[in-house]
Amino acid sequence: MAMASEIAALLGVEVAAGEREISRVSGIPGAGPEAVVFAMDDSALKEALASRAGLILGPLGPLGAAAHERVLRVKNPRLAFAQVYARWFDERGGRGVHATATIGTGAVLGDGCEVGAGAVLGDGVVLGAECIIGPHVTILSGTTLGDRVKVQAGAVLGSDGFGYARAADGYIGFPQIGTLWIGDDVEIGANTTIDRGALGETRIGRGTKIDNLCHIAHNCVIGEDVMIAAQVGMAGSCTIEDGVMLGGQVGLGERVTIGKGVVLGGQGGVLPGKRIDGDGVVYWGTPAQPVREYLRGLARMRRG
Amino acid sequence: MAMASEIAALLGVEVAAGEREISRVSGIPGAGPEAVVFAMDDSALKEALASRAGLILGPLGPLGAAAHERVLRVKNPRLAFAQVYARWFDERGGRGVHATATIGTGAVLGDGCEVGAGAVLGDGVVLGAECIIGPHVTILSGTTLGDRVKVQAGAVLGSDGFGYARAADGYIGFPQIGTLWIGDDVEIGANTTIDRGALGETRIGRGTKIDNLCHIAHNCVIGEDVMIAAQVGMAGSCTIEDGVMLGGQVGLGERVTIGKGVVLGGQGGVLPGKRIDGDGVVYWGTPAQPVREYLRGLARMRRG
Amino acid sequence: MAMASEIAALLGVEVAAGEREISRVSGIPGAGPEAVVFAMDDSALKEALASRAGLILGPLGPLGAAAHERVLRVKNPRLAFAQVYARWFDERGGRGVHATATIGTGAVLGDGCEVGAGAVLGDGVVLGAECIIGPHVTILSGTTLGDRVKVQAGAVLGSDGFGYARAADGYIGFPQIGTLWIGDDVEIGANTTIDRGALGETRIGRGTKIDNLCHIAHNCVIGEDVMIAAQVGMAGSCTIEDGVMLGGQVGLGERVTIGKGVVLGGQGGVLPGKRIDGDGVVYWGTPAQPVREYLRGLARMRRG
Repeated sequence: MAMASEIAALLGVEVAAGEREISRVSGIPGAGPEAVVFAMDDSALKEALASRAGLILGPLGPLGAAAHERVLRVKNPRLAFAQVYARWFDERGGRGVHATATIGTGAVLGDGCEVGAGAVLGDGVVLGAECIIGPHVTILSGTTLGDRVKVQAGAVLGSDGFGYARAADGYIGFPQIGTLWIGDDVEIGANTTIDRGALGETRIGRGTKIDNLCHIAHNCVIGEDVMIAAQVGMAGSCTIEDGVMLGGQVGLGERVTIGKGVVLGGQGGVLPGKRIDGDGVVYWGTPAQPVREYLRGLARMRRG
Repeated sequence: MAMASEIAALLGVEVAAGEREISRVSGIPGAGPEAVVFAMDDSALKEALASRAGLILGPLGPLGAAAHERVLRVKNPRLAFAQVYARWFDERGGRGVHATATIGTGAVLGDGCEVGAGAVLGDGVVLGAECIIGPHVTILSGTTLGDRVKVQAGAVLGSDGFGYARAADGYIGFPQIGTLWIGDDVEIGANTTIDRGALGETRIGRGTKIDNLCHIAHNCVIGEDVMIAAQVGMAGSCTIEDGVMLGGQVGLGERVTIGKGVVLGGQGGVLPGKRIDGDGVVYWGTPAQPVREYLRGLARMRRG
Repeated sequence: MAMASEIAALLGVEVAAGEREISRVSGIPGAGPEAVVFAMDDSALKEALASRAGLILGPLGPLGAAAHERVLRVKNPRLAFAQVYARWFDERGGRGVHATATIGTGAVLGDGCEVGAGAVLGDGVVLGAECIIGPHVTILSGTTLGDRVKVQAGAVLGSDGFGYARAADGYIGFPQIGTLWIGDDVEIGANTTIDRGALGETRIGRGTKIDNLCHIAHNCVIGEDVMIAAQVGMAGSCTIEDGVMLGGQVGLGERVTIGKGVVLGGQGGVLPGKRIDGDGVVYWGTPAQPVREYLRGLARMRRG
């Protein structure tokens, strides 16, 4: 529950008028007087004004000069909406350890952790405060999580990496006895797998978000605030620097480096040992190229 | 158990002769007099006739003029075989709720549902009649299933979508508080993940089949009788119209529309916001093109 | 615990001198006198010599003529390291069946099997000796494992394949009632899914290693000592001959054959019904081509 004036204060805007009580966030369809909604542009704002929404986080600028008593105008309505949600309405977490979870010997759970049904935490696993571990998550020994880490259902953290040595009569396993370290505020999607280091460490930096069904191999080092969309796969010992964005189904070979702030589009691939760079530069294709060059080559192929 | 004459009646054909009791479906190797097999062409039919199979669902046409007392001739023997299996021999389901399953408060299970070992159903989840939920499946709150939905082991339904807003000091989560609706006769493969809507709904239409390890993001709307092969991934808010077929490892960007009846070959990709159309038209590649154009470009690239 | 002289004997080299007790394998950073490390080249060897490592498995050749009392020189130090680990330090397995595992009626477990928390073994499943089954693994009825098979967390073995027949009013399921056979020393990664045969058998040959999040469809027949990297997907009835290597995210259509010893690079694809061949030949791209031709076409497209 929040008052319109409190929301306005959080967002640093003045309320045009209309104090009211807000009890939930909502999409525009189905919003009632108890709900706050957001509108990114004038067209959405018209739709929102036609609804019964109690409060609207709308864009700066036009749509009539007059202030509107239900509208708070902000620079980024979607961000403002997420901030309001995080501040008052996010009810995730806090349900404690489910009776069916298996907690290994010596595992340490920080204050306020939630562990879902059937989750398995190996011996000695360490969780910071307020982590949310979904149902059927497996966290194996040697894994350490920071604070407020969220791991969705079915994810596997700390599995053995895919490392073998070829002997005369077949492959034998290379030792997979390292660790996995995950920073604060990391979020990990459903059924994603992250391998422990072979000898050293696999690291996921603070604030990084990983979608469903991704594969992070042994000894990858991922920076802070990296966004990794669904079904991305990276082979062993990759380095992903801060602020990188990887589109869905991207594939990286062994020992690839993705420089700070690079954006690599969906299904793109980088070959083993290669490095791509450029803060904000968009890459595409396999092998990945800056998007302008990629599109030029594509046009050449297609038009002949 | 079915009599040959009953099978003939189901398929709408006359029995040449030979009444007998059939107790199972089988491949041709290993088939005995108790088994019904199928043969798509004359070569397979010869093989079947050389086996001890009690009944053969064979193709219309040649292979001697004479009717054969073990052969029922039908237009589509593979379909006929599946129909016979569905009518008499499919023994899936009906084993009730396994003792190790976790059923949330207020969850509703229709008649005849089977829930496997370790499955987790969140509070308020609704299952129609005769659903089959495999071991280790997670169905989170806000999810509704129709009748005869089959969910294989390890699938996750109703996970939080991958939605964030960029703030000055990192990403904050966009609310993921919507719902997931799944129609009658949908089948979902092992370890597939389907996210709930962010604010609205994710929908999977009646009769749609989804293979293993697929990713369906928040707010996707999938039509009826859609076939989605393994490891397909689609980003948020895609629309897939009725009768579409997506090959393995297809990737779709945000807000993509795939028009009714389109066939998109394996590993194909469609860029965010794009739409492709054409009932029965086969597309290929990334960005997806009608197959003829795709092959022309490929030949150009490869031959120079 | 092993003496340096015992390690030297296993590897068939003479100890320069320096008997000592070794109690673990380690990477070079953090290695103490109790640890054995390996170094693939002179640069790594220098680093190792600067560490406190008790024993170093180093390459043949240079770096001073003089023998070094801490160095055992071998042809393949990484392989030697893995052999030493396997012989003395691999402590996986042997912890028996976890109390929360579900073991079906008539399931048979060989001597020394370990079954992790929450794992589910269906009725009649057969495990050879010394298998290691991770947490949340699902092994369904009709599946047989050889000796020393390792299955990581969340993998699903024996799921129903994706087979349907088109009827007038939608798809109906083709019977998925076959079996899954897995040979000795196979290893299977986290959240990987392997379907049972539709009518016949899916087979994974001795010594084959499969990484995380792979999909092996119904009736695939995979040879011995095949390496399958993460997120590979293969459709039904593929044949993969001995010694093949498939890079990450490779996709194979139905009834593809990959000939003995072929190497198919990451994200490569082979179209339904096709075959590629050549022991040691490296293929790339979709449709897969020998790498030299692939690169030539790529250069043509990109340079114009």
